[in-house]
Amino acid sequence: MESKTRKHILLFIVACGLFNPLVAQQKAGRLLIAEQGSFMVGGTQTVVPGAFSVDNALKPEGQTYHGDHAYVFYQKPVKARKLPLVFLHGAGQSKKTWETTADGREGFQNIFLRRNYTVYLLDQPRRGEAGKSMVEGTVKPTADEQFWFTQFRLGNYPDYFPNVQFPKDPQSLEQFYRQMTPNTGAFDTKVVSDAISSLFDKIGEGILVTHSQGSGPGWMTAIQNDKVKGIVAYEPYSGFVFPKGELPAAIQSSGLFGELKGVEISVEDFKKLTRLPIVVYYGDNIAKEPSKVWNMDHWRSGLEMARLWATTINKHGGDAQVVHLPEVGIKGNTHFPFSDLNNIQVADELSKWLQEKGLSD
Amino acid sequence: MESKTRKHILLFIVACGLFNPLVAQQKAGRLLIAEQGSFMVGGTQTVVPGAFSVDNALKPEGQTYHGDHAYVFYQKPVKARKLPLVFLHGAGQSKKTWETTADGREGFQNIFLRRNYTVYLLDQPRRGEAGKSMVEGTVKPTADEQFWFTQFRLGNYPDYFPNVQFPKDPQSLEQFYRQMTPNTGAFDTKVVSDAISSLFDKIGEGILVTHSQGSGPGWMTAIQNDKVKGIVAYEPYSGFVFPKGELPAAIQSSGLFGELKGVEISVEDFKKLTRLPIVVYYGDNIAKEPSKVWNMDHWRSGLEMARLWATTINKHGGDAQVVHLPEVGIKGNTHFPFSDLNNIQVADELSKWLQEKGLSD
Repeated sequence: MESKTRKHILLFIVACGLFNPLVAQQKAGRLLIAEQGSFMVGGTQTVVPGAFSVDNALKPEGQTYHGDHAYVFYQKPVKARKLPLVFLHGAGQSKKTWETTADGREGFQNIFLRRNYTVYLLDQPRRGEAGKSMVEGTVKPTADEQFWFTQFRLGNYPDYFPNVQFPKDPQSLEQFYRQMTPNTGAFDTKVVSDAISSLFDKIGEGILVTHSQGSGPGWMTAIQNDKVKGIVAYEPYSGFVFPKGELPAAIQSSGLFGELKGVEISVEDFKKLTRLPIVVYYGDNIAKEPSKVWNMDHWRSGLEMARLWATTINKHGGDAQVVHLPEVGIKGNTHFPFSDLNNIQVADELSKWLQEKGLSD
Repeated sequence: MESKTRKHILLFIVACGLFNPLVAQQKAGRLLIAEQGSFMVGGTQTVVPGAFSVDNALKPEGQTYHGDHAYVFYQKPVKARKLPLVFLHGAGQSKKTWETTADGREGFQNIFLRRNYTVYLLDQPRRGEAGKSMVEGTVKPTADEQFWFTQFRLGNYPDYFPNVQFPKDPQSLEQFYRQMTPNTGAFDTKVVSDAISSLFDKIGEGILVTHSQGSGPGWMTAIQNDKVKGIVAYEPYSGFVFPKGELPAAIQSSGLFGELKGVEISVEDFKKLTRLPIVVYYGDNIAKEPSKVWNMDHWRSGLEMARLWATTINKHGGDAQVVHLPEVGIKGNTHFPFSDLNNIQVADELSKWLQEKGLSD
């Protein structure tokens, strides 16, 4: 009798295990989503003076125009960790940056959902599905993809870097080229940080993950809004902020953007960046000293500036860390480490940091 | 003994039910996703004559430009039905159209995922995250939102239609205005249908769901590609195709787009639309006869043209049906029935049609 009951209980536990959604998720690669959706956040509006009349509905009088908001798509997994990850793309990109990779593998969207983080993916104001810009813009088809191949350190076109973590088939490269998408109005750091700050006001505390140009509005968002509890910046270049009086000399570079300067802000604002842990990652094939190879030298200037900046943050009592991935054994990364062939390894590195800083509860 | 065993079996079934992910999904509102991701599809490219040189990487010679692709985000539920739903937005919109509604309820993306359909959401070429256009475009902030409020039949601004199925709080209206997003290059039916046809080549058979202006490229896609196994068109207006010699007279209207004309195509092409079931839905507050209320009259001309068109399809042996929602008891719908307050009812109507036509296996 007793042993029969035990057997039944055992059967019960085993069988239920098969139906446990979290076990199923890990096994079959399924994603168990508690909630998903999208919304627009932040932005401003104008109203044309006068009165709107239905009988003259094509006249601007009394009509409004809303723009400069961000578009947000979010997914919350079952058993979500406390702090969500908010992802901001870089120049010429959209939230696609964080989705499926050029060769069809999972990007950080899915990888971190599987690691039980709620993810928010942004199209910044004037980009992607947040195209309503408050300023006029012109979109010109411009043949420049071999420049971007080189600038983004896939290699020196047409050659890939020998150790590069980018797939070498033409279909993947085509996907990579097509995932760029233009500004519908000029890039404006303040417009972007205002929209992201509105997002944090809406969702509460979280961790901001930026790529490249996104780092500039990222720092400003953390200064504006203390709900930003950590920043992860992949390959920032421009937009490093320094306190008044501590701006370092511009860094000379053979990179096609020329010398790299920091941005001076008030000491008071700068000190707000010392409230939260920050990590900055750079990939491989960056020059170690000034070089005539312009792409490798462009990113050398970024990495050097990042190190000066982290030193300044830490001197003021902050917690900023610059990780040059090859130095921790992660080799061959392009400007897009989170979608490279080794992006699981890159994600592991981030998971470790989040845990170390108490951001993974 | 026997009754004890029965009790254990019962306990087993009940307890496993609690852990069954599909039951859990229905209960807790969870979504169980087998696979999700995004990619670019279709498009063309140009190459500037000459040779690219890394030393002159800002010169166009030898550089490529890829554009006019569509962006696609897809989600496949566990236990997916055979045919996916492919969603194409209308003018001034993006895939946001099908996501969370202006007042935060679930849109057709989630509703049909819950009904076990795989969903593909498109940003058409030159829109949203598929912004790389092969033609130059200008984006101008234009105060026109009160026009759209009226055109899209929320009401006659500032008045909502008394029975309108749109939330009347200002936050929802703001979200609705902000979800519009501009063209980065001129709308081109062929460019759009080529990209969608490429999508069907990639994913195989499916059902195309279009909104408004999306219907034009929708019909052309079904003509180009026999993998389109059904079309659902919400509130088409322009782009109705007729066989050579059977073009009806233009329909006069006080609508601000003026008279409505059909588009003449070859009999051979037209007959391809008779291969698949088609349903066309219109919402409420559309004039029954010519009216001076321009928004109600604009959509009267659309509905009348749709009926002429369906009659022509059916005369040629096809299966097209026009459903004016108020006539089947679904009242108050705007130009966006799938996101209106009663969108579950609107979805039920679609589910019924899909089942009737054998498209829901």
